[in-house]
Amino acid sequence: MDDLFAYIDQHGPQFESDLCELLAIASVSADSKFHGEVRRAAQWVAEYMRRMGLATELIETIGHPLVYAETPDVPGAPTVLVYGHYDVQPPDPLDQWITPPFEPTKRNGNLYARGATDDKGQMFTHLASVHSWLKARGKLPVKVKFLIEGEEEWGSKGINDYIARPAAQTKLKSDICVISDTCQFGPGQPAITYGLRGIVGFELRLTGPKQDLHSGTFGGAVTNPVNALCMMLAAIRGDDGRVQIPGFYDDVLPLTDRERQQLAKLRFSEDNFQQQLGISGLSGEAGFTTLERRWARPTFDINGIYGGYQGEGGKTIIPAKAVAKFTFRLVPRQEPDKIAKALEQFLWSLCPPGIKMELVHQHGAQGVVVPLESPYVAAASRAIERGFGKAPVFIREGGSIPIVTAFAKKLSLDTLLLGWGLDDDNTHSPNEKFNLADFHRGIKSSAALWEELGKPSLAGS
Amino acid sequence: MDDLFAYIDQHGPQFESDLCELLAIASVSADSKFHGEVRRAAQWVAEYMRRMGLATELIETIGHPLVYAETPDVPGAPTVLVYGHYDVQPPDPLDQWITPPFEPTKRNGNLYARGATDDKGQMFTHLASVHSWLKARGKLPVKVKFLIEGEEEWGSKGINDYIARPAAQTKLKSDICVISDTCQFGPGQPAITYGLRGIVGFELRLTGPKQDLHSGTFGGAVTNPVNALCMMLAAIRGDDGRVQIPGFYDDVLPLTDRERQQLAKLRFSEDNFQQQLGISGLSGEAGFTTLERRWARPTFDINGIYGGYQGEGGKTIIPAKAVAKFTFRLVPRQEPDKIAKALEQFLWSLCPPGIKMELVHQHGAQGVVVPLESPYVAAASRAIERGFGKAPVFIREGGSIPIVTAFAKKLSLDTLLLGWGLDDDNTHSPNEKFNLADFHRGIKSSAALWEELGKPSLAGS
Repeated sequence: MDDLFAYIDQHGPQFESDLCELLAIASVSADSKFHGEVRRAAQWVAEYMRRMGLATELIETIGHPLVYAETPDVPGAPTVLVYGHYDVQPPDPLDQWITPPFEPTKRNGNLYARGATDDKGQMFTHLASVHSWLKARGKLPVKVKFLIEGEEEWGSKGINDYIARPAAQTKLKSDICVISDTCQFGPGQPAITYGLRGIVGFELRLTGPKQDLHSGTFGGAVTNPVNALCMMLAAIRGDDGRVQIPGFYDDVLPLTDRERQQLAKLRFSEDNFQQQLGISGLSGEAGFTTLERRWARPTFDINGIYGGYQGEGGKTIIPAKAVAKFTFRLVPRQEPDKIAKALEQFLWSLCPPGIKMELVHQHGAQGVVVPLESPYVAAASRAIERGFGKAPVFIREGGSIPIVTAFAKKLSLDTLLLGWGLDDDNTHSPNEKFNLADFHRGIKSSAALWEELGKPSLAGS
Repeated sequence: MDDLFAYIDQHGPQFESDLCELLAIASVSADSKFHGEVRRAAQWVAEYMRRMGLATELIETIGHPLVYAETPDVPGAPTVLVYGHYDVQPPDPLDQWITPPFEPTKRNGNLYARGATDDKGQMFTHLASVHSWLKARGKLPVKVKFLIEGEEEWGSKGINDYIARPAAQTKLKSDICVISDTCQFGPGQPAITYGLRGIVGFELRLTGPKQDLHSGTFGGAVTNPVNALCMMLAAIRGDDGRVQIPGFYDDVLPLTDRERQQLAKLRFSEDNFQQQLGISGLSGEAGFTTLERRWARPTFDINGIYGGYQGEGGKTIIPAKAVAKFTFRLVPRQEPDKIAKALEQFLWSLCPPGIKMELVHQHGAQGVVVPLESPYVAAASRAIERGFGKAPVFIREGGSIPIVTAFAKKLSLDTLLLGWGLDDDNTHSPNEKFNLADFHRGIKSSAALWEELGKPSLAGS
């Protein structure tokens, strides 16, 4: 890799200034005022790829366009789909930016701009690495397909509609997907995110008497929908923090001993974590650590609740109705629809006399995990160690990245989440930044990844 | 009484239109937006009494003003304190009113308005009866003192502060108190209410993280204040409908066998009751009938709850805080302060790590039972039989009239609860109403009461 890394070092300043051109385009996908800029960003990315010599297309969608490009076939070697997004979050509040969001500025080793890390900067590392391979070696050891969308911050409607089509599925067929849109575990400690949780959400509506009743005249004999709601919701979770719905854990993919050992080795301070959140205690499922609870165990969280009187003082009523919105975070193999059925049965068994129950099933996505034993994970790990000079740790993420689930479902693709960002990069906030050393390490890791994935051991895997 | 009843019949329409004037004043005591209207209602009542020829005062308090008025002394006859309130409950939800709450409207023999029965309409029957006596006979057979407050729906701070003063106690000295702020047993079946439940109210506020958190990134490890609130509230009541706070039932005055037999004889249809409320099932404390649960057993009702996202769709957060307002109805001998202490201790024992708890003790009143053997009860029973054409039954009431307890404590006064309302009057709910026939029967019963109380048998009792 010496020739490649030398090329990347030599052309580092050029890559930085190329990225700055893209960052200067205000491609705010959610705001129609900026839709001209969104298209300009798509065209900039497409033009950059074309100049690299890639077969490139701007694909129109029901939303903002996709940029697609591919390198030539490499018989016997894997095909890699690289996903990223060229759109950015709105920049407001503008007055809190030290330098304007669309005037990329270097300060203290960082590049400041909206989209610096989420996701233009991280996405660009893969463009730069392919560019470097093509310049230094003339061709890549794997086939790379780029699919860069422009609506990640606005619901990804266009890409989801596109990948549902058989023609798109054929075109995008690959062995593994790579996304750089996450974080390192900490400064100088790169990470591979190998698991994401799923989600299933509900709204539970309980109706009692046809209107609010006087709690003196009727209290004690008429079932109170708010009391009933609290009772039913409380019953979902036991004192040990475990969900009490029969069958809830049946399909849960357990943490392996190796995973738990690796998670235990991560430097994570519960004190700092609590201080950051302003709390003085933690709770969760018995028998699991805080990181395990956040990343690899299912949850039950009430997201909102209301019923009865919310104003000043008090009002002595039995409210006529009560509503709660809640979500379960799921782990791989738990199926949202199966959980929904079990929940509904459980709630019916609890619903007291005099209460009408309505359960609205809102949305769902399965959790995903790439087995740590996967040769792709091993290849990515070696590549990152070469790019960063330090082996990555293996982490999971408690949230969902809907496109990863969509790729798994629609394209039968596992995804490697190789994040070059940092927790304090201010994504979605003023003064978003990307550490420039991480930018260059990301390019090198990406360059090394093509080599690692092209090694004979992965051929045809 | 023929002359009096004839006068009342003749002037019925005038009394109705007088009452409508008072009902049009939005005297919502709990909401500071309406405080100008509250004073306007006090002034209206005072002006009405002045025009009747009573010695009238507007007494300023630490809260809303009291209206005081008295008829001349009647040597050798008892003095009767008539209490009522000119304030009303908040009218929301406004969109459920068929006609606006402060535009009194007659429909199907009822008068619809906030306060129609609770308590402007019922209170007004005594003004109208005194007015009738003064017009038809020139003077009353007893001395009547009116004390009408404006904070009954908001904790009665002003009147409680006032009656604690020795000068007020001298001024209010009476032989018996009369209050019409309760219900008949059913349409055409008047009742004397001999027992009231007490009440103690709280607001429980739970705070978790310093701001709403992403439920994916943090869910499972950070205590969710809404989950915690549901768990804590659900723990207050057991599956058997009994309150689980240690010591809660220690001081409960049990129902006597005789009372239970009498209650069992009352014509009460659970089917009709459910149909009237629009529910298809009842629940409550195991081992007690519906009437016993409503009148003579303590309760726990959540009156309002909120936390997190209440808008359309969902929002995947761990809310930063959650709040519930709730009340316990108490029975005679249970002490609100003792219950509050036991509750606080119980909640602290349940409060999970990572949650800050604040319990606000809102207001309290003890339950009361009036001796059925009193000659005043017999006099009231005869008066009601004359006004309604039917003898009253003796019942209890699930609501609280804290002032009854205060009068017993501060003025050593027993209270006759002579209710002209009906169960389905929608007090504290949209479309509150008062049956107009009951309004006129109430005026006649009140007029007959002054005669019954003025009979020699009661002199000096």
